[in-house]
Amino acid sequence: MAEFLGSALLAAIVVGSGIMAQRLSADVGLQLLENAFATALGLAVLIAILGPISGAHFNPAVTLADAALGRSWRHVVPYIAAQVIGCIGGAILANAMFGAAPVSWSTTGRATGPNLLAEVVATAGLLLVILLLVRSGRGALAAPAVGAYIGAAYWFTASTSFANPAITIGRAFSDTFAGIAPASVLPFLAAQLVGAALGAALAVWLAPARRG
Amino acid sequence: MAEFLGSALLAAIVVGSGIMAQRLSADVGLQLLENAFATALGLAVLIAILGPISGAHFNPAVTLADAALGRSWRHVVPYIAAQVIGCIGGAILANAMFGAAPVSWSTTGRATGPNLLAEVVATAGLLLVILLLVRSGRGALAAPAVGAYIGAAYWFTASTSFANPAITIGRAFSDTFAGIAPASVLPFLAAQLVGAALGAALAVWLAPARRG
Amino acid sequence: MAEFLGSALLAAIVVGSGIMAQRLSADVGLQLLENAFATALGLAVLIAILGPISGAHFNPAVTLADAALGRSWRHVVPYIAAQVIGCIGGAILANAMFGAAPVSWSTTGRATGPNLLAEVVATAGLLLVILLLVRSGRGALAAPAVGAYIGAAYWFTASTSFANPAITIGRAFSDTFAGIAPASVLPFLAAQLVGAALGAALAVWLAPARRG
Amino acid sequence: MAEFLGSALLAAIVVGSGIMAQRLSADVGLQLLENAFATALGLAVLIAILGPISGAHFNPAVTLADAALGRSWRHVVPYIAAQVIGCIGGAILANAMFGAAPVSWSTTGRATGPNLLAEVVATAGLLLVILLLVRSGRGALAAPAVGAYIGAAYWFTASTSFANPAITIGRAFSDTFAGIAPASVLPFLAAQLVGAALGAALAVWLAPARRG
Repeated sequence: MAEFLGSALLAAIVVGSGIMAQRLSADVGLQLLENAFATALGLAVLIAILGPISGAHFNPAVTLADAALGRSWRHVVPYIAAQVIGCIGGAILANAMFGAAPVSWSTTGRATGPNLLAEVVATAGLLLVILLLVRSGRGALAAPAVGAYIGAAYWFTASTSFANPAITIGRAFSDTFAGIAPASVLPFLAAQLVGAALGAALAVWLAPARRG
Repeated sequence: MAEFLGSALLAAIVVGSGIMAQRLSADVGLQLLENAFATALGLAVLIAILGPISGAHFNPAVTLADAALGRSWRHVVPYIAAQVIGCIGGAILANAMFGAAPVSWSTTGRATGPNLLAEVVATAGLLLVILLLVRSGRGALAAPAVGAYIGAAYWFTASTSFANPAITIGRAFSDTFAGIAPASVLPFLAAQLVGAALGAALAVWLAPARRG
Repeated sequence: MAEFLGSALLAAIVVGSGIMAQRLSADVGLQLLENAFATALGLAVLIAILGPISGAHFNPAVTLADAALGRSWRHVVPYIAAQVIGCIGGAILANAMFGAAPVSWSTTGRATGPNLLAEVVATAGLLLVILLLVRSGRGALAAPAVGAYIGAAYWFTASTSFANPAITIGRAFSDTFAGIAPASVLPFLAAQLVGAALGAALAVWLAPARRG
Repeated sequence: MAEFLGSALLAAIVVGSGIMAQRLSADVGLQLLENAFATALGLAVLIAILGPISGAHFNPAVTLADAALGRSWRHVVPYIAAQVIGCIGGAILANAMFGAAPVSWSTTGRATGPNLLAEVVATAGLLLVILLLVRSGRGALAAPAVGAYIGAAYWFTASTSFANPAITIGRAFSDTFAGIAPASVLPFLAAQLVGAALGAALAVWLAPARRG
């Protein structure tokens, strides 16, 4: 339930702040700055409040890496289901809060080569941040660190760093600033899984022993 | 007294930074970014400095939830009175600092369906943030977390997240960027109380035992 | 020496980021956002690194309040001298880094009634932040809290919150974004001293016993 | 390896966010604000995650100061090699993520007198921040403090604060917002080394005994 709620709020933050930015600002860079400002702050808060309850993954790539690195695979299916349904629900909620149609398929094609490379880098970096903190016994820093990482990654990756299969699916439900056309979703998911595997491998190599 | 002072300074920050933003910037999105930047930082500081004295509610919805979840109802009336009078005083102070008439009733109607849904979401989220931190024994994180939450919520809720009955009343006293027309105040208060009840119920459900 | 160095760097940050903002951005609000972003971050860092050495006042109003609230008056004169000379030096350094004349008297008159009221509020708030943290034994939070407070106060006070007699003097030496005409300096200093006394009185009233 | 990876990600953040900002925003100041926002957040995260592994220098000036102040000189050559190669790799990665040619020599000449003075100040300040924190036993604060310092220094130094010989070399490989013409690289390196020596000397003078 915490994964569902957190994923829904995360999607509402990402999509909603994108709609607000697009409506109020003329400069596309300023829109992205507003979107990144809201996402970095909101994501950090969600991890801080829900971390002690569910671990605050909100992200199938994180759940899969967590399972692969030693915990049981028991939670994987319900977690991923809650994350995907949550992100779809959050996107619909954002549409509703802004008086738009509940569902409007995004028409923003994003599946270019550079963008897919960027998703590999973005997801690898995200896993590196989370796993290096956990493996050095500093999981409590994950909330500000993941918020800050995503705030930066919106800018330094050409794809604006989705880095999360569940929110990639959710963003397809809103034809607004943060949307992604359904045809671009599968390539993005593939790039994210490659990035997650790369990031997890790097983290294990850099910090072999789990100290936390 | 701390509730009065904190509420007054909060309203001065919200209204004053809105006036400054409106005067200096042309792009409405940039105005909201400036308003959100000032509010997130200022609110975090007010909670940090006044939290040990009064609990730093500055918000009738928080005071009511706090009373309902187990403390006595004794403080409710004086707290809410201090908050409402403080927020009105703060709005008047902001008007005066910017050389405007002390009171100018706002003419910004905001009571649309999507905005009221957004206020329910915004207030539920605020209560969830506060109560989950307190109930997990991490109330000391409330200052940065509430500041960050409101900074994000300015963007992802269509109403720009008032989420506070006292400041909603105070904002009616300034016909500037952050104002709200008196006719929109009551519907906003109703939506905020619904949101507060929803957020408190969710928090109790997710974290049944108070550990803090 | 730490007070001199910190005050010089603080003035270089305030004046220098103002010059950069003015040169690169067209919108005055955006210039102030850039100036506030740099000042909030830079001031927090300066307090963090120099706090353990000199207390990191960088501000005669803080030094005076500190002396009045119980420590000896021995340090007041050398501290204030170091702060004022440091702020002048920092403004000259900023001018030099941007290839401008080392000294150019500011022509920005600021001594209006609303601005002076704003300086009273800004300085009272600053003292409240510092003293309430110190008196509750949380002086270590002063670095991020003072940085965040000034970042917000640039926006919610009409004067853009100088709140510091030393930097007010230093800013007169640069006819750029953050400057202040020499004729406006004395009224600003008077307002700041009134605000400091008000803030210190409020802090003592709210937190009578020094716990820290 | 951690130094290589961190330096590569740092260069990718600096160069990549510069490209994104330049493509999306019209106002040059807004571009720098976006670049500074991403760099401050990303750099803080990189130091937080890689600090326990390699010390998270990512900067030959820091490695040299660290060696000079008492540790062995054994690590200097491999560290600096990893930093320089990492920063070049990161710049190439950023070019690739944005679909540009892997290498495009920058044509932005920056070696003016004021800019070189600014690099001395920027690098001295960076060393002061790091060394004063380490020497007061608060090295754990280096991640947010260095991120915040660089975020401020982008603004208050006329050169936008490279302050790092390795990233100066890396930035020459991208003819985009954050680039630097190869002919300006050597003067920048010289200014940075002068600044590093000055900052280290000031830090030792202010905090003679290493407590940490």
